[in-house]
Amino acid sequence: MTVNTQVLIDSLPQGKLTADNYRIAEGPVPEIGDGEVLVQTTAFAITAGTRAGLQGSAGYAGAPTTGVVMNGTGVGVVVDSRAAEFTGGDRVLGPTGWQAYSAHKPRALSLIPEGHDPFHYLGPLGVNGLTAYFGLFDVGRPAAGETVMISAAAGSVGHLVGQMAKTADARVVGVCGSDAKGRTLTGELGFDAVVNYQEDGFRQALKEATPDGVDVYFDNTGGDILGAALRRMNVAGRIACCGVVSQYDTDNPEPGPRGIPGLLINKRLDMRGFLVFDFADRYAEARDTISGWLESGKVKALVDEVHGFEAAPSAFVDLLAGGNIGTRVVRIG
Amino acid sequence: MTVNTQVLIDSLPQGKLTADNYRIAEGPVPEIGDGEVLVQTTAFAITAGTRAGLQGSAGYAGAPTTGVVMNGTGVGVVVDSRAAEFTGGDRVLGPTGWQAYSAHKPRALSLIPEGHDPFHYLGPLGVNGLTAYFGLFDVGRPAAGETVMISAAAGSVGHLVGQMAKTADARVVGVCGSDAKGRTLTGELGFDAVVNYQEDGFRQALKEATPDGVDVYFDNTGGDILGAALRRMNVAGRIACCGVVSQYDTDNPEPGPRGIPGLLINKRLDMRGFLVFDFADRYAEARDTISGWLESGKVKALVDEVHGFEAAPSAFVDLLAGGNIGTRVVRIG
Repeated sequence: MTVNTQVLIDSLPQGKLTADNYRIAEGPVPEIGDGEVLVQTTAFAITAGTRAGLQGSAGYAGAPTTGVVMNGTGVGVVVDSRAAEFTGGDRVLGPTGWQAYSAHKPRALSLIPEGHDPFHYLGPLGVNGLTAYFGLFDVGRPAAGETVMISAAAGSVGHLVGQMAKTADARVVGVCGSDAKGRTLTGELGFDAVVNYQEDGFRQALKEATPDGVDVYFDNTGGDILGAALRRMNVAGRIACCGVVSQYDTDNPEPGPRGIPGLLINKRLDMRGFLVFDFADRYAEARDTISGWLESGKVKALVDEVHGFEAAPSAFVDLLAGGNIGTRVVRIG
Repeated sequence: MTVNTQVLIDSLPQGKLTADNYRIAEGPVPEIGDGEVLVQTTAFAITAGTRAGLQGSAGYAGAPTTGVVMNGTGVGVVVDSRAAEFTGGDRVLGPTGWQAYSAHKPRALSLIPEGHDPFHYLGPLGVNGLTAYFGLFDVGRPAAGETVMISAAAGSVGHLVGQMAKTADARVVGVCGSDAKGRTLTGELGFDAVVNYQEDGFRQALKEATPDGVDVYFDNTGGDILGAALRRMNVAGRIACCGVVSQYDTDNPEPGPRGIPGLLINKRLDMRGFLVFDFADRYAEARDTISGWLESGKVKALVDEVHGFEAAPSAFVDLLAGGNIGTRVVRIG
């Protein structure tokens, strides 16, 4: 415990992100002060949304900088504690970043209960699962028999949204970028239909996959898929705006889709952006519900695992190109 | 009562609407059947939204056709009735279209009570006022002290929205296309600030006029003004999508504004389209409230009047170019 391996943002991407935008460094293990906790990372998740934080214009996370540890949510073990809330050996979830050791105030950490799989806290019981839960049920509000469409449906959030929508007896249609992903969604996760947006005739295929239109669209991508969804929406439909993966990996985002705001009016659509952090006071409720689904098998966590800090940058680049199925996790040690 | 003067759609506009897209014709006065009512038009309103019905793609009103009477809401007098609900001399509001005589089922007509100004039923007590009321209070939901921004603020809906927002103790900022309009809004109707979108430096002026950001944006235009509003919105703001006047008078609508859906997510915005007809079961409630405001002087109706069927086509073209202040009404006889 003398060296803190870290993945630093070495430069901001010009155009698409490359692995060269990162470098591996060895920093000191942080000294903790009174009321702080030292955590050793055992795994962290790579999520598309963090790409937005590397864009020139400041998003909700603030303006990007270089020379700092790449941010991310991880799970780990408490290796030293000067806070009453945690003791050595506790398993925790927190904003570890892409590094071996990190110091935290207790309020930044969540204890992972005995008997729970820590990996679930990077997936269905972590930010991804909570995002899926609140975006679907609080923003999308599907009723039984309605059609729920999901973009980036094989992604870390999307594959959970679809399974959660099935618990509400909705018809679930996923949009993803490969037939292999589609087979996983329909074959293993209970999706009713999938459409590959990379194929010619995507809009026609989407139309055929949504014969009764779309009542809830859970949007992880923005861009062309949002444009196609707008045309399939039913009157009084809801669009839950969760992510914009189509626009993250560029320094020249596209204009918004045609039909905004005209189609919103004609169809009386409600299009609402959300961030999971706004629902923080209800995480416990959501985790209870999702835990039940994990136990009963109604929701399965797909994890797509790579190993070691060195693998993280290219795993992120690959994820932005659609290379993952489920939650991409980097396991350490 | 032998000739029914009518304004017909003669051709669909290619690009911008012109007066030549209409022709005046003399048709027969309709014969009414059992259960029908014959109405003689005394005035009708010209509204920007009907331009959308002339575009090639079908909106909520269906695909456009030629050789038919131009649609519109009017007020008139019952001149013959074979329905129990109305008798000769009743003053009514209904979908008269741009013509002298029209036949209706009773359910399409609203009785204008004794002592009420029929012109108010083309403005604050008609579709315009009801649109302002439900869009503002049900979709926008301003709280006291919040900032409400309105585009096409001097228009038939906009000038009412601003006055209604003042009744809720909001700060009201109007966007319009001339300084003369702006002076009317601040000088006569109580708007707190106005910004002229035709001026250079519009975005900077909007910023200065909204020092605390924008909590509710009532959007009558879409396009660039929507794009500017998105950047001024506060976290958890609401956008009430009412009209798209910037995109009506063209056969080549622009893409949507940049930042959709990214800004919706970062700011957790709720952007919702609505049509007043969805609130039909609450018109009476709204009319009671608005009548009270008219009596107390809290809401004033601006009417911009022209005379005769022949004047209607060019009055519509002029309205689409921003020529009106308040509700444009064509008075007959």
